[in-house]
Amino acid sequence: MSRNLGFAIIPPAAPPAPEPTGPAMTAPAPAMPPPLDIPGGRPRSVVLVGMPGSGKSSIGRRLAQRLGLPFCDADAEIEAAAGQPITEIFARYGEPHFREGERRVIARLLSGPPVVLATGGGAYADAETRRAIRDSGAVALWLRCTVPVLLPRVAGRSTRPMFLDQDPEAVLNRLMAARHPFYAEADIVVNCLDESPETTTDRVQAALEGHAMPDRLPVALSASPYEVLVGEGLLARAGGLIAPVLPARRVAIVSDASVAALHLPALRAGLERAGFEIRASLSVPPGEASKSFSPFGTLMEALLAAGIDRSTAIVALGGGVVGDLAGFAAAAALRGLPFVQVPTTLLAQVDSSVGGKTGINLKAGKNLAGAFHQPRIVLADTGVLATLPARELRAGYAEVAKHGLLQGPLWDWCEAEGAKAVAGDAAALRHAVLESCRLKAAVVAADEREESPEGGRALLNLGHTFGHAIEAECGYDGSLLHGEGVAIGLGLAARLSARLGLCDAALPGRVEAHIAAVGLPARLADLPRGFTVEALMGRMRKDKKVRDGALRFVLLRAPGEALTRGDVPPALVEDLLREAGATG
Amino acid sequence: MSRNLGFAIIPPAAPPAPEPTGPAMTAPAPAMPPPLDIPGGRPRSVVLVGMPGSGKSSIGRRLAQRLGLPFCDADAEIEAAAGQPITEIFARYGEPHFREGERRVIARLLSGPPVVLATGGGAYADAETRRAIRDSGAVALWLRCTVPVLLPRVAGRSTRPMFLDQDPEAVLNRLMAARHPFYAEADIVVNCLDESPETTTDRVQAALEGHAMPDRLPVALSASPYEVLVGEGLLARAGGLIAPVLPARRVAIVSDASVAALHLPALRAGLERAGFEIRASLSVPPGEASKSFSPFGTLMEALLAAGIDRSTAIVALGGGVVGDLAGFAAAAALRGLPFVQVPTTLLAQVDSSVGGKTGINLKAGKNLAGAFHQPRIVLADTGVLATLPARELRAGYAEVAKHGLLQGPLWDWCEAEGAKAVAGDAAALRHAVLESCRLKAAVVAADEREESPEGGRALLNLGHTFGHAIEAECGYDGSLLHGEGVAIGLGLAARLSARLGLCDAALPGRVEAHIAAVGLPARLADLPRGFTVEALMGRMRKDKKVRDGALRFVLLRAPGEALTRGDVPPALVEDLLREAGATG
Repeated sequence: MSRNLGFAIIPPAAPPAPEPTGPAMTAPAPAMPPPLDIPGGRPRSVVLVGMPGSGKSSIGRRLAQRLGLPFCDADAEIEAAAGQPITEIFARYGEPHFREGERRVIARLLSGPPVVLATGGGAYADAETRRAIRDSGAVALWLRCTVPVLLPRVAGRSTRPMFLDQDPEAVLNRLMAARHPFYAEADIVVNCLDESPETTTDRVQAALEGHAMPDRLPVALSASPYEVLVGEGLLARAGGLIAPVLPARRVAIVSDASVAALHLPALRAGLERAGFEIRASLSVPPGEASKSFSPFGTLMEALLAAGIDRSTAIVALGGGVVGDLAGFAAAAALRGLPFVQVPTTLLAQVDSSVGGKTGINLKAGKNLAGAFHQPRIVLADTGVLATLPARELRAGYAEVAKHGLLQGPLWDWCEAEGAKAVAGDAAALRHAVLESCRLKAAVVAADEREESPEGGRALLNLGHTFGHAIEAECGYDGSLLHGEGVAIGLGLAARLSARLGLCDAALPGRVEAHIAAVGLPARLADLPRGFTVEALMGRMRKDKKVRDGALRFVLLRAPGEALTRGDVPPALVEDLLREAGATG
Repeated sequence: MSRNLGFAIIPPAAPPAPEPTGPAMTAPAPAMPPPLDIPGGRPRSVVLVGMPGSGKSSIGRRLAQRLGLPFCDADAEIEAAAGQPITEIFARYGEPHFREGERRVIARLLSGPPVVLATGGGAYADAETRRAIRDSGAVALWLRCTVPVLLPRVAGRSTRPMFLDQDPEAVLNRLMAARHPFYAEADIVVNCLDESPETTTDRVQAALEGHAMPDRLPVALSASPYEVLVGEGLLARAGGLIAPVLPARRVAIVSDASVAALHLPALRAGLERAGFEIRASLSVPPGEASKSFSPFGTLMEALLAAGIDRSTAIVALGGGVVGDLAGFAAAAALRGLPFVQVPTTLLAQVDSSVGGKTGINLKAGKNLAGAFHQPRIVLADTGVLATLPARELRAGYAEVAKHGLLQGPLWDWCEAEGAKAVAGDAAALRHAVLESCRLKAAVVAADEREESPEGGRALLNLGHTFGHAIEAECGYDGSLLHGEGVAIGLGLAARLSARLGLCDAALPGRVEAHIAAVGLPARLADLPRGFTVEALMGRMRKDKKVRDGALRFVLLRAPGEALTRGDVPPALVEDLLREAGATG
């Protein structure tokens, strides 16, 4: 399931083919485009970056031979193209002119069949050249060396004019301070020791083979398009991944105490490696109570007291509460700051971090104050899900099942493989996150501000009219998680759909069976408390989706075919609730 | 200065021609477009609307004769075009078909030379027909009658089939309840008594002659264009003016206690006349303290408790504090509600109500939390300025002078006529508001979110780097109004510009002389307290416009030619402050 580099020597891993069962055979093809980042799994070029003396040429030649690819040296190509040595070009025309030529040569070398390309030490420190390499689809690999490793290799070499008549250690330190933040944007980092080139090449090859590039899902909003990155190990690479979409390498991190204890060090290291200044790192207490007015004020004051400016990005590290709270703070502080979502729960990764809805709760209800504030990028690091309590993982899975029912083929995958995701299987989780985000990105792109009267974002509320009512009755005290309410809501929505003759009579049973199979509550009666029809109907009438007093439901004709209806007779809903075990 | 209907019988009032003095002769032509709403002051059609029996035809014929315009009767034209009576069209094809034809006929009649047009009673109750009449540039005039006036005119007439076999009073009451809210969108309302047609025609003609249409300034934002309406008596017509740009006739009003006491009844009546439901009418205490976090929370809870929904517009009735606070509430409530600005101070009318900046103060500084949330429409009712304390009027005028310096010709007008505005002259005030809004609208349209690195919205901060520092030193306790700080700031900005050799050496004296002439403090030394250079410099270094530690100033080459500079030597600024009377 996990995507790999697609080198010729590595057979591309096929995505898991779910066993088609029942209606899946006739389900419509998914409307989503195929992933864009690895076109057809064809071999990709490898670009080696790093300091002078890090071995880009010697390792590059060996690597090329092993991969069966041609080797190119960018500096040699530049000299050939210019008909003069680089020192000469530098001296005559200056660095900007040289960088421009270098960028053109590198782009040309990467536009043809795959190669292994060694670059000059300054190439990857140039923003435009980094962009050209990224856009070419090549993999950038940083050969990271320490000063003691580099020093003997560069000292006294006349071919490296920048070291002439200089203290080589001072030059190295200066260059490293300036360039390492940019090298950190490389896709892969290999720490090089004082070892033989063959040994380093072994390690480079192993890193390439073991490395899975994150999937990149575009959220195609006309005003502010962005990408959702799904993969493992993204926290450690956070700085390099987010720098290209931010105005400055300057952030304030908002997290909650539990998440911060687990993941803040990795995120900080990932940011600092790319030269980010962390102006503030603020934690709120875990739990829904942090998503209210007074903590919001405290957070705003703390952010402003920390000296954030208009170029400081707010990074949300946590679940839905942190994402919603920090996102609204990012929207409101200085009338709008760049925002980055780093969701750490399955619920946040598959749902709340994508789509730009931010906000806090008021006394009058949940999410009543907020903003549509789209992130610049979402890093869904599926590796962090390993630390999630099993119950939270299950609750997040309810939204995956919801996306499955909305999308169609994903529902078949859920029935076949979903239990693996809930059991913590990394590949299954990555698939679940990826396909959920793909669905959500498409829905959000078509209806950014939930303005479509029918369909659009409203469809994402499948199971939520019932789910919110059940959740509200339980009082948001942790006795029922949001996803658990949604799980029961999905069954009820399917039952209502069948009752209205919209879907196959077997669908509700199928939905409830799958929900139960992954360990979620599938029916009202599965909960340890009772509900009255009256109370649940009252909650539903206060739902934000109510228009002109009429309840609106998202219903199903089949997995992959959802619709909204505002004309469902209340008596029918009451009947359904009574049947499900509510009293009164 | 006030604009009139431009009927042939009324000579169009020429705008005041300021005496060009000094540099004005060489000032560049204003870049602003001419007003669009009254093309060349040519005669306009008059459309009479109202209930059956209100006299649209009999008054219309008389009015046409007096104005020397042709008279048309829409119903007669429809019957002629269709070749059958209206009762027949209704019966055969139904009302929607009839309304469509009626709209086409009315649009055709209004597309030619000006006429007086009597419409059928239902015509103006149709949203598309109202839009067609508005778009034609015609003046809609409602002949408003009471039931006792109408009853004898309609009872028992066989030509009015809707009254056949019905209780005419009940029919009238039903029709009036349904139609009056739409009739209220007419530009002019004439209350008709039981009097002779000649007398009513006298009063209609007087209303037309005495009536000044509001000026309509477009703010040409690509995503959400809107209009600023400038004129007198807009509060009383608020409902009819704002209904066309709102999703529903449903509002919550936010005001402050002082303003509400003066103007809320007129606004409420103006809204209710057009059938608006006022879900809530909330007041905050007057003063800057209401623009902070805790009152914002109280307001948000009150709005949501009042049962606002996504179609409820928030109407801000008041000065800058109310507009900023209510605007941010509109941005945040339910992630964004429609917003209407009804500014009641000169400062708000010429500055804060246009441009979409909303927000509140935090402990860390002013306006640090907020949103860019554009209003759907701004009603700048210059009539309400008559109730403004003289000191507030003067303070607001400082922003007019600023706009003058940015725009050029408006500065010449300020020097020639500005004192009249400050003295409360209605026509001068209307001109000041209109031209200020015209400038601001153009600047905002070009740089909605203050993202232009040089120029753009940043130019609107002319005088504000100094002004904010002086204001902050005075502690926002009312001892110095914002506009008073800006007034001194304008003089200092001009002095700095001259010191840098950017502008004529005479400009600072000219600026200070005009500021003093209108009764505003023109120099630091005019204030009853002292300032230290160190304190003012410290405040300026905390200004939001500071980038990378360098102070940014908006400077002048001449009235109409402003620029920003980030390289002014601090020692020069310190010198200037010392010269102006600061110590240290």
